[in-house]
Amino acid sequence: MRGIIRQSSRYLSTLKPTIKELLSNPPQVESLITASGHIKSIRHGKTAGFIDVSDGSSHSNLAVVIKKPDEVLPKLQLKLGQSVNIKGSWIESKGTQPYELVYNIDDQSHDIAIIGDVPETYPIQKKNTTMQNLRQLPTLRHRTSTLASILRFRSFLESKFMEFFNGRQFIKVSPPIVTSSDCEGAGEQFRIESLTKLNDSQKEPEDFFFGKSAFLTVSTQLHLEVLTLSLNRAWTLTPCFRAEVSNTNRHLSEFWMLEAEMCYITELNQLTRFTEEMIRYVTQAVKDSNDDSPGNGIDLINSRFSREEAEKMKQRWDSILTEKEWPSITYTEAIEIINRVMNKGRSKNRLTWGDSIQTPHEKWLAGEYYKSPVFITDYPKAEKPFYMLTSNSYSEDKPTVACFDLILPEIGELIGGSLREHNYQKLLEDIEEKDMNKDEIEWYLSTRQNGTVPHGGFGMGFERLVAYLSSMDNVKDVIPFPRVSQSCSC
Amino acid sequence: MRGIIRQSSRYLSTLKPTIKELLSNPPQVESLITASGHIKSIRHGKTAGFIDVSDGSSHSNLAVVIKKPDEVLPKLQLKLGQSVNIKGSWIESKGTQPYELVYNIDDQSHDIAIIGDVPETYPIQKKNTTMQNLRQLPTLRHRTSTLASILRFRSFLESKFMEFFNGRQFIKVSPPIVTSSDCEGAGEQFRIESLTKLNDSQKEPEDFFFGKSAFLTVSTQLHLEVLTLSLNRAWTLTPCFRAEVSNTNRHLSEFWMLEAEMCYITELNQLTRFTEEMIRYVTQAVKDSNDDSPGNGIDLINSRFSREEAEKMKQRWDSILTEKEWPSITYTEAIEIINRVMNKGRSKNRLTWGDSIQTPHEKWLAGEYYKSPVFITDYPKAEKPFYMLTSNSYSEDKPTVACFDLILPEIGELIGGSLREHNYQKLLEDIEEKDMNKDEIEWYLSTRQNGTVPHGGFGMGFERLVAYLSSMDNVKDVIPFPRVSQSCSC
Repeated sequence: MRGIIRQSSRYLSTLKPTIKELLSNPPQVESLITASGHIKSIRHGKTAGFIDVSDGSSHSNLAVVIKKPDEVLPKLQLKLGQSVNIKGSWIESKGTQPYELVYNIDDQSHDIAIIGDVPETYPIQKKNTTMQNLRQLPTLRHRTSTLASILRFRSFLESKFMEFFNGRQFIKVSPPIVTSSDCEGAGEQFRIESLTKLNDSQKEPEDFFFGKSAFLTVSTQLHLEVLTLSLNRAWTLTPCFRAEVSNTNRHLSEFWMLEAEMCYITELNQLTRFTEEMIRYVTQAVKDSNDDSPGNGIDLINSRFSREEAEKMKQRWDSILTEKEWPSITYTEAIEIINRVMNKGRSKNRLTWGDSIQTPHEKWLAGEYYKSPVFITDYPKAEKPFYMLTSNSYSEDKPTVACFDLILPEIGELIGGSLREHNYQKLLEDIEEKDMNKDEIEWYLSTRQNGTVPHGGFGMGFERLVAYLSSMDNVKDVIPFPRVSQSCSC
Repeated sequence: MRGIIRQSSRYLSTLKPTIKELLSNPPQVESLITASGHIKSIRHGKTAGFIDVSDGSSHSNLAVVIKKPDEVLPKLQLKLGQSVNIKGSWIESKGTQPYELVYNIDDQSHDIAIIGDVPETYPIQKKNTTMQNLRQLPTLRHRTSTLASILRFRSFLESKFMEFFNGRQFIKVSPPIVTSSDCEGAGEQFRIESLTKLNDSQKEPEDFFFGKSAFLTVSTQLHLEVLTLSLNRAWTLTPCFRAEVSNTNRHLSEFWMLEAEMCYITELNQLTRFTEEMIRYVTQAVKDSNDDSPGNGIDLINSRFSREEAEKMKQRWDSILTEKEWPSITYTEAIEIINRVMNKGRSKNRLTWGDSIQTPHEKWLAGEYYKSPVFITDYPKAEKPFYMLTSNSYSEDKPTVACFDLILPEIGELIGGSLREHNYQKLLEDIEEKDMNKDEIEWYLSTRQNGTVPHGGFGMGFERLVAYLSSMDNVKDVIPFPRVSQSCSC
């Protein structure tokens, strides 16, 4: 009967308990326990040695007390970064953690074994280093408390999104990564080719495998719309790819995009309210989290962040969770406010209707003017992709579309969304107006001829949200192996 | 205060309720309700018309009763596939569903509006069609009850995996899709190139963007190992890509792979037991599911499957949930059993130690001999990739590695996993023995010099599990837009 799931066992799985499990569901005091992890610190006290061991399961290190340090420590040759197995007595502690492990060389059942050694040059030391330096160590940087906590936090957030969408009858789907269409028409696609050549083919190399040119998706929106028309509500969290050469702290060539689409909405306001509900939901979960699941807010705060960094994070959470509904202004109103207040009416830097609202404007609007997340809606049609529905405020003079950007203080745009044009004839006109190749997206167009329904949705760069909520400066530090121009190290 | 999450509202979100929500959390009887969806069937009875409306939120259609059908139906010109908004009275019903919507033309508040029409040739009709035919309709096939239920089921399963891993302290991570390494060394990678040419570069086209050749990942295992060494336990569910030319019912060029790695395991048996626990967990969740979340087992059974198909599904669930622990045999034992029992000792078809165990053998072992999922462990080293740990039963005569395949009845291999070689020197020897380019995976090798720990893990083609549990014959029907050789339709 060993194969039956044993829910009654102390630790849920058949694996050795993690340090997190040991600390949160402690074994009996005085029992003999083996714990494993990497050495994070070593201190030689007068009557005892102290080593901190971490296995990455939470921010909490296991404190190990070494009796007779003068005798034991020189013999063991412990170094930061080594992986160790330690067998000792589990006792109550007066330190940071309620329990600790005691190693006594005179107890035959106790043992410290180095499983994996490190070279003298092991680069992850206790002293602080910069995130930029750590990026040069792609295989070791997640051994730091901070970056390990960011990975746990990212995982926690993903769970909370799943919970949010499950509770609202959204189906998680997997639209294709390889596509023959260019969703945004921005020409920033990667093309893929197979090295497996078909013997009898005379085609061009890139045409070999799929029978036509194929690209990596820049957004799954068009495919997601198709699925949503069958499922009512759908969402996805998938990798997207953009060959952007610009190297900033908010762009990646490979990033994860959270996209959602929903049917039977007719007002932009339904979409912005839903978006607000979603971001509030996950932020509240971060703030309310207790220590039961890895990667929650407490875990993040207790990781190696400084007190200042923790305060900044908590302020960001609170600004999202403001009692007041987030303000929503139109693009036209935003231009007026920027000209009147930010530019103080001066003609220099004055924005004209139709100009882009730049990131500094966005940061000012959310960070200084509203001190809150803010929606900007109804942008000029000329600035936006072909698939957006005409806005209620559309005029020949100022042609606008029913879209929004969610702007956050300090980082600017987090989410962009719109109602989609669901009328075949109008969508066709938009495609012709934008000079797009109709044949290439005939499949998408056809959904408007087969029981079309009003719908809308949005996309969010997942790394931007992770970085914002964890107060990290660069999206490169919230994805395990960042890919940008001229960098694909392993 | 509109922006604050209103948990108390009848339907959780600010969106219009889905048909599923209406049926599971019904409004007051006799109230005026608007429902939206696609027409699935139309029937003209003597005293009433009946139309079934589905919005894809569950297997349950909304039944709409049309009073005065002789007057109303000819005027409305309803057709299968049209999207409609129907305003009517919500009443209790004696039909399949406990409630229905009544449309009465004499009631001024009632209304039926066609939102989206369909052409006369609308191809999704009530009569059954084959899955193969539906594949020719990539944008419409998920309007069928069966394929919509499969998408909901896939989403449900993904949630359950999240739940399983969260409960066992595994961190969900996002290893890179673009990589400069070939994990399996099988030469089935897609290469990617940017169409954005850097002006001052004299490099070859494929080198432009990342500064070196870059590929789509065939398995994230190597990167996942790196992260696991920092987090103790990690898992992922990501797209993987293989340029396999073979077009079978169990292969895709783009598929989703669930991979998990865990530290501090030293026996293969820990890995197989964990795998068994995982598959049992999600299958039990499917079997136990009530109707609260979309995509559960009941939803699947109640979709358009025939009774035979539903029975087959339930048998598969039960064979996974067998009371007995799943058998585990070594490769050597498997060869012996196949020769003795399957081949009845005849010399024809006799397998010699070192031969591959083929899919028909696997299906026979699991389906006929054990009538149960079965683990085959300790395969010959020569058959397997470089990274596997030497097995306990290794001999010079029969060199084996500590690996396993999980074999299911009817489909064969579902999961493959192994303990990983964590000793630097031995791994280096394996790399040299396999004639691999050491420089290319120096980054991976280096983890064995920096606090290495014993670890292991496995990978599972997600579509294979979805297809098995839902009793679908072809993985192409459990992924929304299948990509295979010569096929990338949109």
